[in-house]
Amino acid sequence: MPEFDLAIRGGTIVTAADTMKADIGIRDGRIATLSASVTGAAREIDATGLLVLPGGIDSHVHISQYQGPDISMADDFASATAAAAAGGNTCVMPFALQQRGTSLRRCVEEYRALAEGRCIIDTAFHLIISDPTPEVLGQELPALVKDGYTSFKVFMTYDDLVLNDRQLLEVFEVARREQALVMVHCEGYDAIRYMTERLERSGQTRPFFHAASRPQVVEREAAHRAISHAELVDVPIVIVHVSGREAMEQVRWAQQRGMKIYAETCPQYITLTAEDLDGLNMEGAKYVCSPPPRDADSQAAIWEGLTQGVFQTFSSDHCPFRYDAVDGKLNPKARTSFRWVPNGIPGVETRLPILFSEGVSKGRISLQTFVALTATNHARLYGLYPQKGSIGVGFDADITLWDPAKRETIRQEILHHGADYTPWEGFAVTGWPVMTLSRGVVVAEDGKVTGTAGHGQILSRDISDFARPRGL
Amino acid sequence: MPEFDLAIRGGTIVTAADTMKADIGIRDGRIATLSASVTGAAREIDATGLLVLPGGIDSHVHISQYQGPDISMADDFASATAAAAAGGNTCVMPFALQQRGTSLRRCVEEYRALAEGRCIIDTAFHLIISDPTPEVLGQELPALVKDGYTSFKVFMTYDDLVLNDRQLLEVFEVARREQALVMVHCEGYDAIRYMTERLERSGQTRPFFHAASRPQVVEREAAHRAISHAELVDVPIVIVHVSGREAMEQVRWAQQRGMKIYAETCPQYITLTAEDLDGLNMEGAKYVCSPPPRDADSQAAIWEGLTQGVFQTFSSDHCPFRYDAVDGKLNPKARTSFRWVPNGIPGVETRLPILFSEGVSKGRISLQTFVALTATNHARLYGLYPQKGSIGVGFDADITLWDPAKRETIRQEILHHGADYTPWEGFAVTGWPVMTLSRGVVVAEDGKVTGTAGHGQILSRDISDFARPRGL
Amino acid sequence: MPEFDLAIRGGTIVTAADTMKADIGIRDGRIATLSASVTGAAREIDATGLLVLPGGIDSHVHISQYQGPDISMADDFASATAAAAAGGNTCVMPFALQQRGTSLRRCVEEYRALAEGRCIIDTAFHLIISDPTPEVLGQELPALVKDGYTSFKVFMTYDDLVLNDRQLLEVFEVARREQALVMVHCEGYDAIRYMTERLERSGQTRPFFHAASRPQVVEREAAHRAISHAELVDVPIVIVHVSGREAMEQVRWAQQRGMKIYAETCPQYITLTAEDLDGLNMEGAKYVCSPPPRDADSQAAIWEGLTQGVFQTFSSDHCPFRYDAVDGKLNPKARTSFRWVPNGIPGVETRLPILFSEGVSKGRISLQTFVALTATNHARLYGLYPQKGSIGVGFDADITLWDPAKRETIRQEILHHGADYTPWEGFAVTGWPVMTLSRGVVVAEDGKVTGTAGHGQILSRDISDFARPRGL
Amino acid sequence: MPEFDLAIRGGTIVTAADTMKADIGIRDGRIATLSASVTGAAREIDATGLLVLPGGIDSHVHISQYQGPDISMADDFASATAAAAAGGNTCVMPFALQQRGTSLRRCVEEYRALAEGRCIIDTAFHLIISDPTPEVLGQELPALVKDGYTSFKVFMTYDDLVLNDRQLLEVFEVARREQALVMVHCEGYDAIRYMTERLERSGQTRPFFHAASRPQVVEREAAHRAISHAELVDVPIVIVHVSGREAMEQVRWAQQRGMKIYAETCPQYITLTAEDLDGLNMEGAKYVCSPPPRDADSQAAIWEGLTQGVFQTFSSDHCPFRYDAVDGKLNPKARTSFRWVPNGIPGVETRLPILFSEGVSKGRISLQTFVALTATNHARLYGLYPQKGSIGVGFDADITLWDPAKRETIRQEILHHGADYTPWEGFAVTGWPVMTLSRGVVVAEDGKVTGTAGHGQILSRDISDFARPRGL
Repeated sequence: MPEFDLAIRGGTIVTAADTMKADIGIRDGRIATLSASVTGAAREIDATGLLVLPGGIDSHVHISQYQGPDISMADDFASATAAAAAGGNTCVMPFALQQRGTSLRRCVEEYRALAEGRCIIDTAFHLIISDPTPEVLGQELPALVKDGYTSFKVFMTYDDLVLNDRQLLEVFEVARREQALVMVHCEGYDAIRYMTERLERSGQTRPFFHAASRPQVVEREAAHRAISHAELVDVPIVIVHVSGREAMEQVRWAQQRGMKIYAETCPQYITLTAEDLDGLNMEGAKYVCSPPPRDADSQAAIWEGLTQGVFQTFSSDHCPFRYDAVDGKLNPKARTSFRWVPNGIPGVETRLPILFSEGVSKGRISLQTFVALTATNHARLYGLYPQKGSIGVGFDADITLWDPAKRETIRQEILHHGADYTPWEGFAVTGWPVMTLSRGVVVAEDGKVTGTAGHGQILSRDISDFARPRGL
Repeated sequence: MPEFDLAIRGGTIVTAADTMKADIGIRDGRIATLSASVTGAAREIDATGLLVLPGGIDSHVHISQYQGPDISMADDFASATAAAAAGGNTCVMPFALQQRGTSLRRCVEEYRALAEGRCIIDTAFHLIISDPTPEVLGQELPALVKDGYTSFKVFMTYDDLVLNDRQLLEVFEVARREQALVMVHCEGYDAIRYMTERLERSGQTRPFFHAASRPQVVEREAAHRAISHAELVDVPIVIVHVSGREAMEQVRWAQQRGMKIYAETCPQYITLTAEDLDGLNMEGAKYVCSPPPRDADSQAAIWEGLTQGVFQTFSSDHCPFRYDAVDGKLNPKARTSFRWVPNGIPGVETRLPILFSEGVSKGRISLQTFVALTATNHARLYGLYPQKGSIGVGFDADITLWDPAKRETIRQEILHHGADYTPWEGFAVTGWPVMTLSRGVVVAEDGKVTGTAGHGQILSRDISDFARPRGL
Repeated sequence: MPEFDLAIRGGTIVTAADTMKADIGIRDGRIATLSASVTGAAREIDATGLLVLPGGIDSHVHISQYQGPDISMADDFASATAAAAAGGNTCVMPFALQQRGTSLRRCVEEYRALAEGRCIIDTAFHLIISDPTPEVLGQELPALVKDGYTSFKVFMTYDDLVLNDRQLLEVFEVARREQALVMVHCEGYDAIRYMTERLERSGQTRPFFHAASRPQVVEREAAHRAISHAELVDVPIVIVHVSGREAMEQVRWAQQRGMKIYAETCPQYITLTAEDLDGLNMEGAKYVCSPPPRDADSQAAIWEGLTQGVFQTFSSDHCPFRYDAVDGKLNPKARTSFRWVPNGIPGVETRLPILFSEGVSKGRISLQTFVALTATNHARLYGLYPQKGSIGVGFDADITLWDPAKRETIRQEILHHGADYTPWEGFAVTGWPVMTLSRGVVVAEDGKVTGTAGHGQILSRDISDFARPRGL
Repeated sequence: MPEFDLAIRGGTIVTAADTMKADIGIRDGRIATLSASVTGAAREIDATGLLVLPGGIDSHVHISQYQGPDISMADDFASATAAAAAGGNTCVMPFALQQRGTSLRRCVEEYRALAEGRCIIDTAFHLIISDPTPEVLGQELPALVKDGYTSFKVFMTYDDLVLNDRQLLEVFEVARREQALVMVHCEGYDAIRYMTERLERSGQTRPFFHAASRPQVVEREAAHRAISHAELVDVPIVIVHVSGREAMEQVRWAQQRGMKIYAETCPQYITLTAEDLDGLNMEGAKYVCSPPPRDADSQAAIWEGLTQGVFQTFSSDHCPFRYDAVDGKLNPKARTSFRWVPNGIPGVETRLPILFSEGVSKGRISLQTFVALTATNHARLYGLYPQKGSIGVGFDADITLWDPAKRETIRQEILHHGADYTPWEGFAVTGWPVMTLSRGVVVAEDGKVTGTAGHGQILSRDISDFARPRGL
């Protein structure tokens, strides 16, 4: 019997700290050895000239998430994980959304049922808490944390999701007690409603005004508020999808005061601007997401945050809708106001090439930083480490072979997601994933998805070191 | 007929800019001349060796304000204005409080009725808006602004007063349109409730825990939120009674970004600390006010703000209650939790000596800064200038003669307010007001109130230059 | 005999704190009264519709200052004070420059001799210390301070003037001991030499490269260094002619730490940019001054500093040269490198209209701030207060009548300075001085200089309150 | 023949990114494999229960450095590298010091001669430039960089070493051109001389006043100056041995502006304070180093910098002298003034345990941060990577086995350095190095040095990625 099931030979391995030329020997889906030369494997992959990276972990994706009666997401677990795999990822972290008035446990079971048997790569659920009843706070959450759902997301906006400050504080208190990590969507509900109605009253309803309805100050205020609540309770939190200079500076300020405030940003905030929402007809709808893309100064600020360690993770916030949903048209209600435009953009498949090209190829960040931002830190922050997140002995053989010199142009026709467009149509990149292995199995290769539904497992996660309060 | 009704001779006049030796000639209640020598007045006051200051204006006092069925304020308009006059003031600005469900206009009339004929010095009302209905926002406020009620106060906490963010934004919008100035009490309602219940659950109910129930982060968060809302609407606001470093730094940050954020602080924040709430038995109740006094570092920060121009006004936030209200005892409910301790301290009579002594006598601030902080800026900010606020030709003869060398010890027995204690019992000061003139009439002299009820007028105010939005 | 020599009637008096309608009565060159109505004066001036301002004090002008053998300044004391008077000023503060190897006392006598009998308005000398020998530090300076030369200027650049850090520290120590105020020219000598030689080596010698030879970082570094030395010695200093954002932010940072760092800026830094040095032929030479004008962002930063109290004084740094010095041409050496272009621009006559128009007329600053920045603070900072700097009983009758509505275009042909050009040729302003009175004597009126040489006195000055170290 | 010369089995490998349980196989002095199980090695070391760390790299040590005629360092290359090995290090980076008036190349040869054949672990020299003549700048430095001396140190203080600003700029320019990295000792020469003489004049000469002679402001000013010069030239620099809050904040400010300013700190700045210099008799002399230790607030600030990524390296600044140098007494001159106390403390042997214990064991930093600060970043910054600095395939087998639970008390009697004392006498630590391997050879074990002189090589280094200017 051969010593290894598979060898990856001749490549350059990159971790969040190091770069080294070495072969990898894989056995039983795990990395068994890193050596100058691995021979005697049942199968060999030649990685000469390629980077051998930890598979991407995308800790912020929305899949099959309930959107109300009129609209549905463009991806189910099969298509989303296929797209993710094609884009160089080996793990995604979607959300199990509690609808108000329902049991959180039941919601979790429902989302698991949607995912079970359909995933091509491994998947782990965060919880979204929209109704923090005493039952949820006192019984369900503690039990779910014990079952490996060790992170929750809460929202400071959206009619069906918004928590008030009191509820935020109570969720934070549970997180502190259970050492779970809370992700916070920071935009101020009342301010957005106020601006939206003001814009609508004056007839400013095109998708473009989506950005005007939630300017940076609205995100900054909510970020400051979330940070303050975290300070009051003494609990670490993650501020997700930071879009611009103002919120970034709040995070940096808190970090410098010694607080455990973590932060995430996304491809849209280094490549798009609010101007992109100003397309002909309804084309701007393809760029509607929240927070909205900002401007050149904010893009520069996000890069500052990426290079200076303000951001720990770079995620997609994949939230795919079909532009051409109803009879070849965007849903008619969306034409009446930006308020009804489906809020989210697809991105799970393009996240890695965009950051690699704009960051590594253009000399803004090192390979190490790329790996940290796209894999290692996600695993560490959310309790998947040391099973996932790096290339080392004992880790899952979740590996992406990356051709740093390959030039590609992002186009809808080469993508595998369920959306019918990509916001990055025509975006040219240098660097592209050429093979993705999930626990030693090739799940994507040269633009084709080769994995099978059901290979992907639904993971339970550990308590994260990063969730430990300062005062404990 | 003598040319002047009154001459003040031989003193040193101080304004917010200048110091000069000159006599003052007063005619018909106004300053008619400043001259090297004024002769031929019907009456002369010898101010040799004394400072001749603009009478203090205290733009933040609570008088006869409705406190619910169980408790009442310790001052009515007669006693409050008497105390103010004895303390060197010539104008106070109390609040007309809207109770929810009632007409704002009606509330104004009721408070005017309480004041009419009872005031010893001039008085001008701010409005407190607790119920910003469309009627209030659309009709009553614009009309009241036109009638000279050019400033409103809003609260971010207190069960009966708190406005939510949407309401704050709507009040700000009206203020912008009418160019009225909004005063904001910045403490976060939900956070205080959360902390209060947590403390009560753990039996931490003594007055001391009042401070713990609303730590600096709660004030800072609300200040940031108010600033953000003001930025969104583009409207100047005043952040009142800033208590510590954290809120001060938010104000300074906003000012440095070019925003019109004004700020006020009070004697309690440069002289008291949270330790003062930790008295024997219920003695700490004498220091319960909101925001609570902080610590030595915050006192230093408030001084930074006073010397660096962060604060425009230094007010008392006079809010007097009797310690010994019921049968010689604090009300029994207050003994069950700090939550029920009457929230406020008396201070209208001691504000000026405290700032003079701690500021001018100790060399921290100039005489000019003292005058600006205690008189001129109040008049300018709230539309009483150039009727009041300085010593110059044409101004009301509102003048305080100040003995900069007089040493006094603050004691309840020398005060005139309606409270039965002072938080500064035993506090030694250098510098004391020896005579107060309201429109040329001596209303207090050597610790005795000589003015008569009804001399004080109820003033209407102009639109303030300071209320002009940046973008207008 | 009439009670007053002169009355100014019907105008609106402005001080650094107040605005009031009042007449002024003048006797023996001093203000004797401010009254609602002054009658019975020997002469009356009708100021109806005009602002009555304290005469401008320009605490930073260079007159007849020795510039080496080849070049001379374009103004002597007669022409400079005439131009100042025409521009609304009643006092200028030039420098007595110590040449190395000479006695400071002797230099002072020589400059006094140049000024004596020639000044149209009052004049007071600062000292420039270029050779701080033990004799100068130990004997001359203390004696000169006692004689009323209570401020010194030191340079961190220029071959003939630069002091090294040790010398700066020793001058600061003397200033602390004598409570004199040190003005510091902050630009780093070595960095400028290094850049200059680099530029010259690459043939970049046009006037335009003057700005490149001393970028903001060079000024910022020197400002930080001066601030640090002042901190080490514990002595207040004035950072003069701050040109841009970076140095401004150093000053603000120091002020926020509680240090007594004062700062001055000038018209060139709110109206000109480095682009102005890029004229055809040698035209850029007309804008060569140090520090050089910067860019739009720095102009905005200087306005921030003016409105937020970072700057105490707004001076001209008048340093006039003839553009057309030699046979109708700029001196030939200047054509070989910016290094030889006479370094300085005229500005004593245009300072006030520029700040009034850009500041007051455009709504950026109040009248009070204008008066403080152009008169009151100069007098206070440099020990001329309360003789000069405001309008009040007992002050010198140094008064400028200002027409706030008058539109004028700055042109060389209407100016009185000795330079043959103005950097502001064609600059349109709203607001203009229409009459200047020095100690009650009209010295300029409607663009004509009516004062006589010798009217102006050479003043000795008091120790300034602003020179008191923090630790004393 | 066995596949591996040596196997380290059963330990927990730590890199700057990862932690993993794996065996290490070593062949020809290099790491050949990391595997779940390595068998068949010629020799095995059991690392069960131990951490397997990259050997410490100390990039800031002084060995056999010329100190003038009267005094000599307490370590030569044999004793220094022995002590380093015993303390868990596998590489040290001392300095080849140019004496003024001599060829830099010659100095390098002399220092190499001192080291050759005497080192127990690998060694690489930085250059110290004290005399940047055109010859040095134009010929010697470029040639030496090509020979692998890719970093220089310059001093802003010390009589025999100080460079003026012009010289600093010229060295920076060469560094930019050659992509060498400049280390800067930031303390202001003139300010220190000024303070020293002031203190001496007033009889304050005990070692304690060493700290007073160079307070934080002196370091901060020099740091700001060095940063400014680096900005002007556009070149990365390393600010070494940052001692306190003020200099740290300058570095952080520069980093946030996007500059490539790297920084180092040392054990003395997290464990000692200026109070330690205040010992009985001359005991304080044992703590004299520059910059001096500060205070508790600065210790906190250094921890902020360590946890927030402000510092890249943690070095010892080992600079050993014998306390008891002359006849059992400190040299007599040192008794006359702190100025003559040998300036430096030993630390190469205690650096790692101090940071491990205070940082990792006390929960302030992660194991990853420890490895980055003590090994990986040194190798990366100074061009030794990927030969050294991590544990991975192909790296030198420079490995330290660390017992994280071992409690030890630092005492002179257990140390191997040439000094006759340690500043940390009696300092208790948790975590201790139990074996050090240099290129696969055990050079220290259980407190005994087992390596042989001459095993250590003198390394040449590559250009570092970190030396690339922003603008290139």
